[in-house]
Amino acid sequence: MSADLRGLDGPTVRADVARGARTGEPEVVYAAGKTPAQTLTAVRALLEGGVAPVLVTRAEAEHLAVVADAYPQAAVHAEAGMLVLAPLAPLDDRLAGRVVVVTAGTSDLTVATECAVTLEALGERPTVLADVGVAGLHRVLDVRDTLAAADVVVVVAGMEAALGPVVAGLVAAPVVAVPTSVGYGAAQDGMTALHGLLSACTPGIAVVNVDNGLGAALLARRIVRAGDRRHGGWE
Amino acid sequence: MSADLRGLDGPTVRADVARGARTGEPEVVYAAGKTPAQTLTAVRALLEGGVAPVLVTRAEAEHLAVVADAYPQAAVHAEAGMLVLAPLAPLDDRLAGRVVVVTAGTSDLTVATECAVTLEALGERPTVLADVGVAGLHRVLDVRDTLAAADVVVVVAGMEAALGPVVAGLVAAPVVAVPTSVGYGAAQDGMTALHGLLSACTPGIAVVNVDNGLGAALLARRIVRAGDRRHGGWE
Amino acid sequence: MSADLRGLDGPTVRADVARGARTGEPEVVYAAGKTPAQTLTAVRALLEGGVAPVLVTRAEAEHLAVVADAYPQAAVHAEAGMLVLAPLAPLDDRLAGRVVVVTAGTSDLTVATECAVTLEALGERPTVLADVGVAGLHRVLDVRDTLAAADVVVVVAGMEAALGPVVAGLVAAPVVAVPTSVGYGAAQDGMTALHGLLSACTPGIAVVNVDNGLGAALLARRIVRAGDRRHGGWE
Amino acid sequence: MSADLRGLDGPTVRADVARGARTGEPEVVYAAGKTPAQTLTAVRALLEGGVAPVLVTRAEAEHLAVVADAYPQAAVHAEAGMLVLAPLAPLDDRLAGRVVVVTAGTSDLTVATECAVTLEALGERPTVLADVGVAGLHRVLDVRDTLAAADVVVVVAGMEAALGPVVAGLVAAPVVAVPTSVGYGAAQDGMTALHGLLSACTPGIAVVNVDNGLGAALLARRIVRAGDRRHGGWE
Amino acid sequence: MSADLRGLDGPTVRADVARGARTGEPEVVYAAGKTPAQTLTAVRALLEGGVAPVLVTRAEAEHLAVVADAYPQAAVHAEAGMLVLAPLAPLDDRLAGRVVVVTAGTSDLTVATECAVTLEALGERPTVLADVGVAGLHRVLDVRDTLAAADVVVVVAGMEAALGPVVAGLVAAPVVAVPTSVGYGAAQDGMTALHGLLSACTPGIAVVNVDNGLGAALLARRIVRAGDRRHGGWE
Amino acid sequence: MSADLRGLDGPTVRADVARGARTGEPEVVYAAGKTPAQTLTAVRALLEGGVAPVLVTRAEAEHLAVVADAYPQAAVHAEAGMLVLAPLAPLDDRLAGRVVVVTAGTSDLTVATECAVTLEALGERPTVLADVGVAGLHRVLDVRDTLAAADVVVVVAGMEAALGPVVAGLVAAPVVAVPTSVGYGAAQDGMTALHGLLSACTPGIAVVNVDNGLGAALLARRIVRAGDRRHGGWE
Amino acid sequence: MSADLRGLDGPTVRADVARGARTGEPEVVYAAGKTPAQTLTAVRALLEGGVAPVLVTRAEAEHLAVVADAYPQAAVHAEAGMLVLAPLAPLDDRLAGRVVVVTAGTSDLTVATECAVTLEALGERPTVLADVGVAGLHRVLDVRDTLAAADVVVVVAGMEAALGPVVAGLVAAPVVAVPTSVGYGAAQDGMTALHGLLSACTPGIAVVNVDNGLGAALLARRIVRAGDRRHGGWE
Amino acid sequence: MSADLRGLDGPTVRADVARGARTGEPEVVYAAGKTPAQTLTAVRALLEGGVAPVLVTRAEAEHLAVVADAYPQAAVHAEAGMLVLAPLAPLDDRLAGRVVVVTAGTSDLTVATECAVTLEALGERPTVLADVGVAGLHRVLDVRDTLAAADVVVVVAGMEAALGPVVAGLVAAPVVAVPTSVGYGAAQDGMTALHGLLSACTPGIAVVNVDNGLGAALLARRIVRAGDRRHGGWE
Repeated sequence: MSADLRGLDGPTVRADVARGARTGEPEVVYAAGKTPAQTLTAVRALLEGGVAPVLVTRAEAEHLAVVADAYPQAAVHAEAGMLVLAPLAPLDDRLAGRVVVVTAGTSDLTVATECAVTLEALGERPTVLADVGVAGLHRVLDVRDTLAAADVVVVVAGMEAALGPVVAGLVAAPVVAVPTSVGYGAAQDGMTALHGLLSACTPGIAVVNVDNGLGAALLARRIVRAGDRRHGGWE
Repeated sequence: MSADLRGLDGPTVRADVARGARTGEPEVVYAAGKTPAQTLTAVRALLEGGVAPVLVTRAEAEHLAVVADAYPQAAVHAEAGMLVLAPLAPLDDRLAGRVVVVTAGTSDLTVATECAVTLEALGERPTVLADVGVAGLHRVLDVRDTLAAADVVVVVAGMEAALGPVVAGLVAAPVVAVPTSVGYGAAQDGMTALHGLLSACTPGIAVVNVDNGLGAALLARRIVRAGDRRHGGWE
Repeated sequence: MSADLRGLDGPTVRADVARGARTGEPEVVYAAGKTPAQTLTAVRALLEGGVAPVLVTRAEAEHLAVVADAYPQAAVHAEAGMLVLAPLAPLDDRLAGRVVVVTAGTSDLTVATECAVTLEALGERPTVLADVGVAGLHRVLDVRDTLAAADVVVVVAGMEAALGPVVAGLVAAPVVAVPTSVGYGAAQDGMTALHGLLSACTPGIAVVNVDNGLGAALLARRIVRAGDRRHGGWE
Repeated sequence: MSADLRGLDGPTVRADVARGARTGEPEVVYAAGKTPAQTLTAVRALLEGGVAPVLVTRAEAEHLAVVADAYPQAAVHAEAGMLVLAPLAPLDDRLAGRVVVVTAGTSDLTVATECAVTLEALGERPTVLADVGVAGLHRVLDVRDTLAAADVVVVVAGMEAALGPVVAGLVAAPVVAVPTSVGYGAAQDGMTALHGLLSACTPGIAVVNVDNGLGAALLARRIVRAGDRRHGGWE
Repeated sequence: MSADLRGLDGPTVRADVARGARTGEPEVVYAAGKTPAQTLTAVRALLEGGVAPVLVTRAEAEHLAVVADAYPQAAVHAEAGMLVLAPLAPLDDRLAGRVVVVTAGTSDLTVATECAVTLEALGERPTVLADVGVAGLHRVLDVRDTLAAADVVVVVAGMEAALGPVVAGLVAAPVVAVPTSVGYGAAQDGMTALHGLLSACTPGIAVVNVDNGLGAALLARRIVRAGDRRHGGWE
Repeated sequence: MSADLRGLDGPTVRADVARGARTGEPEVVYAAGKTPAQTLTAVRALLEGGVAPVLVTRAEAEHLAVVADAYPQAAVHAEAGMLVLAPLAPLDDRLAGRVVVVTAGTSDLTVATECAVTLEALGERPTVLADVGVAGLHRVLDVRDTLAAADVVVVVAGMEAALGPVVAGLVAAPVVAVPTSVGYGAAQDGMTALHGLLSACTPGIAVVNVDNGLGAALLARRIVRAGDRRHGGWE
Repeated sequence: MSADLRGLDGPTVRADVARGARTGEPEVVYAAGKTPAQTLTAVRALLEGGVAPVLVTRAEAEHLAVVADAYPQAAVHAEAGMLVLAPLAPLDDRLAGRVVVVTAGTSDLTVATECAVTLEALGERPTVLADVGVAGLHRVLDVRDTLAAADVVVVVAGMEAALGPVVAGLVAAPVVAVPTSVGYGAAQDGMTALHGLLSACTPGIAVVNVDNGLGAALLARRIVRAGDRRHGGWE
Repeated sequence: MSADLRGLDGPTVRADVARGARTGEPEVVYAAGKTPAQTLTAVRALLEGGVAPVLVTRAEAEHLAVVADAYPQAAVHAEAGMLVLAPLAPLDDRLAGRVVVVTAGTSDLTVATECAVTLEALGERPTVLADVGVAGLHRVLDVRDTLAAADVVVVVAGMEAALGPVVAGLVAAPVVAVPTSVGYGAAQDGMTALHGLLSACTPGIAVVNVDNGLGAALLARRIVRAGDRRHGGWE
């Protein structure tokens, strides 16, 4: 095509250094809708632009293989369709936010892993608590103290997502809720969980998109870092 | 109109005695979409047909006034848009089903009342527990024993309706769940609560239509009476 | 991933003995969203925890093969994507609930089978009546006596699901209605059947999620057992 | 406004004589969204253009009053929001189509009346059977012979509209189904009835819009007249 | 499974001779959701029960192959997923209904073929006019006389389905409209066409489900036969 | 409230002169959701800021009265809920865009008027053709030449909005389509018209929001002025 | 009614002191669905229980009047349907969170006010920036520094809510986004804004329910206080 | 099938020369829903009818291969599922419309390419600017001058599509907005972007269907050519 695809030779693969500096967020290559080759090109450009960390998300096995082949040091999380390059060094205990990621069922673990891997790539040290469904309320009560000690709780839940309002009623911290597409029929691919979390009368719930573990991580990190900025950091 | 409105002179106001005998259910005059005069005509026909009890539901003040004027003995429940005539005698303690009606918020009380009034008109003796929201989980735990002792629990909840799966996880009895239209925005007039209750992974939840307190009562009664039929009644 | 996946080494595969004891329900491993290996791990943990029965649902052939390979005694119901281990002994005639599962079409049989297999695993002895569509009303009338004698009727119907309200008008027992995803276009993958069953004016219908044969079985069993609890069991 | 509202002085109120001649349909003034004065202007133009009959539908009391004031001979059907002028002479017994209009509940009568009044204005002689709900199947069976003798059956039903497929299974004639907005919650203002009727597996159902009694009448008449055209009329 | 699958040995494959006699409709085996073997079993039972014609619809290649292998005389219409056995003899010119099936685009031809094949199997002799989209209005005007001469017009159209109201304004006959799933995005798999056809102000449109060519054929035939019944047939 | 409502004393009522200069668009005060007093304040600020023209839209009678009281020179279009101040001088014949606004029914005239009044306030001289429904195709053909001569055609249509694709097939000019909320049931408050217009296969249709006559006018004007800019104006 | 409304004499109006202590949130009386008398009863119980602050939201004029009559010291915010009693003392400059509430249009101010009033009642000192729509991008750029200095930014926007992702790209702080019901047609009462905000690729957006200014305030406060807890407070 | 498929032998593959002459649009063969052979037949008929250019869209690799095999001169754009035959000669600089196609992300490039290829086939010379997302507002500001100089701007954006209203606020030209299906969950396959663009308060946005790059191109061309017609062309 002779159309002037000006963007393709420049901005597409150019690291958006300005935004990174401004918001402290990593560059993420969203692989869905890209070919493996396009994915690799984008990753390469970011790394060569000095961006760190670089995350690839929503990747099929083929995307992961092509990138890992070029960058053997990549940490591949195939079960979550992710790959991490140039991760930040882990923060020490005092600096790392106490982010607890809790899931309602084992089927929600893929999304929770996307969230946890992202946080780790940024140096945070999340804790994951799996399979804490409200059908067995004692499971929730069992981890109550861990939840209460968190700076931010990320709740990952599909179906009716009742875990979200239950947890938000137990803690004083902000709750980031990730509805998942786990379920069928009336669950409507996660839209019922999404709308339920938004309708909950328990205050303090911040909702992100269905299955958006990445977004939950970045929001949780903004929340943790907001406290640091406000208090002048930890010198 | 000269069209042969054959139905209007007959079946419309004729007590469906056959179905009553068959299913044990009362005749209900659904006032929405009827004029007060039509409502009164229907009530009169049922009473003259020997039907008992007769319930009027979804009635505006005008409907209630017209019927109560003609039948001063009517029990009017204006806050629930209901009216009861010819109620059955209360069952004794052993016979009456232990039906516990529990609501998530005070705004759900209208629907819970429709449910409780219907059960009482049929001789049952329901217990109503109001304002047991999951935002304060201790409220749920406080009534845990009452819930566990019920033959049937009716959960009335709007917004995200998380109370439904939480209660269903605490009891062995069937849970009849009534989503309500309490809420706004993503609550979508009760449809989110409806879909959430249907999507819940906790087993044992029987869902009825939004705000359908009447239907919940009739279903709860069928459940209680099914046990009696099976065991040959109480001699 | 170095995140502390605390839940994965514990609660995920730990039998929730407490809830089982409380509600009398079996443990179910929902295979959709789990790998075959995860499925097997969950099954093993439940069996080793002494849980009985153990059901696997929504399983692909691969899940079934992996589990059946490890547990040759498993009863595989491939057409319903199910597998049963450690079933309860069949109840005797007097104890078993008279649960009649009736379907509108042969395409609904998969869901009806999920329901019937679950009831059998719990010792109940369900009866299945297939292909009783309202398009041929005589088919419904032909089985009228069988329906009327049931403790609980489970109606499995897709498309417009008119069988639900028709059956509920013929019997005094509670009707558990399972909308199915049979149909196309305006049937909207079962949501039209779901909403239709919830909108029906015939009272006594308990609706569960689309294609949720398992949930219908567990609800039906709660209803049957509620009667036993109420009457103090059978001597 | 100085814009050239050319259409307003001409086509708006000009009888579309051509289409009437072509399709045999009356001119209908849809009052919703028109002022009473606009309604009267449209009626006057049609009558002066020699059109017959002229129907006004979806009219508020004010519309009806303004038109009836100008044309005292108008037949007003306030309960259906309709008004008829210049009705055609009734057809004799042999010519008139045997159209049976059957409703599921009394709340559906407004729509059924819109249908029946329209048919009568065109000279047909419809029969209306009210309150034939499937909750009491014997009511349907009681009118089975009347239904079977019809040239066309119009079924008017809200909520889950199960009456449509039940009737279509009992007759060989085409069934025109009018979903109504009777119901609440999951009935979604008639959309559930609409989608259910379209999803029914019983063949032979022609669906029109929610509450569209007028459209059902015109469709029923096209069906009756198609037979006449085909057979060369009645000599 | 030891459950008493009583229905499976009887009604499932038993020809519903009663309904056929009552409504004059063929037996249709809907293959979607059935295995090829189940499909063949159903076909065999119908043929052995003396039913004619027998149609198989919504069949994959595998279903068609299995049935055609057992019944080499079957007429296979692979492009429409159909198979016909024991077709009725073609009616003579005077008896056959003049049914014109018109499509908006070539992508709608699959559905139009399902309609036409069904009509032919019943002895009717439909005419198909393809690719008569409103984008080129002259195409519609070109076939205007053919449309005007029809007893029934079947319009098959996807996307916005504007052809439906345009045709209904040109003819006096009933128009059976079949929305199709042709289109994308806002076309919402045919639901926009469906709702548009139901909303059209042109009277005389009978809507059936998305892609339901079979249903359109059976409805069209009921309309044609209603005229015959009314006029006492053709001596 | 002591919160620093900084925005309220400044930007809220400050004419956005920059955007006006940039895009050539008038400032519009959208009255819905504003009190009459807020509306007047906004109007005053704009006029004092030298903005022209100033339009008030979606206004109730009360809003119009308060503004007209303060500015007697205002041109009030009550039937369209509009008010115009400081209109631009009419362009001469050669400069004014040939914009033809065509409506499907008289009920669509409110929206067409909003469009035409806006264009006139900007100096354009639109032509309005009312009641050109596709049910009477000759009405469309009658105005074919007027449509073909337009620079831009604005189609205003509710229900199924078939007029949009029909007109777009007749002209070479861009068609701006405004779906309206005229209709009921399946028309879904204009959403069916909206989705139908977007799904139409006829190319050249630019869709704006339901009932958005204002937006259609501004888009039409951008189209006309784009030609002027491109050709260097008219001198 | 003789049903045991146990909940009504106790938990309904009993201050949930436990949850307040646990989460630091005020008690809010949601007036929609309550009578003025019920509202006053709830307020009185909370105040007598020593709760502070007490907020009434979604109140009609009548609710506000009844409560203000009993408690003349109440701060009434009629334009936001709110009332505040027993507000907390304002925090000093260092302690108060820098929460900036920014609205896209003046019609969004009601919701922004609900948010700001709630924050003030809790001692925070929010800044409100009104009318910062993306249609005039310079308005956004003008307040860029104020936004960048915030601990939390609350974006209140209806229609397409593009302000949310634009602001989230400009700041490093968490953005709480409140979609509003401002708009019509395709805006779908705020659901389009809601879904758009959830779909935005800009990270760091926490979405709450449509028009939920209260929820945004409580979430913003949890975020601010999380930082304090983490850093051990301010001395 | 013996049905008279009259349309298939004629109009289906006959070039609609009349419409092409009337609207200046190319003939497009929409391959989705056609077999490769049907696609080739349609292409051949158009070329033999003298139509130019001929475009094939929404084609799978197989469609493209079959056509390219028969016509080696075809320009294949596999990444956009397109193929061009008989393109028009490029217009010279003065004549070609300045159409700028701008995308929010690289995932939107497929749709942008469909748009640009179509414009080029018609002789226009579009400019494509990729990856101009609002998350990095500077990217938008960087291309501001290019945007401002355009005759028409085509915005291609998925997810929340905020780029549309932002661009429309920066330019005076008409903006053609193409929502894309890029995104997941609340993005609802592009419907959220679609509804958001229609709800935007920035005026001047013409919306086309989801992923409809072709339609955007044809609309953009109509806009450019409208200016030429109006000004009498370029002599």
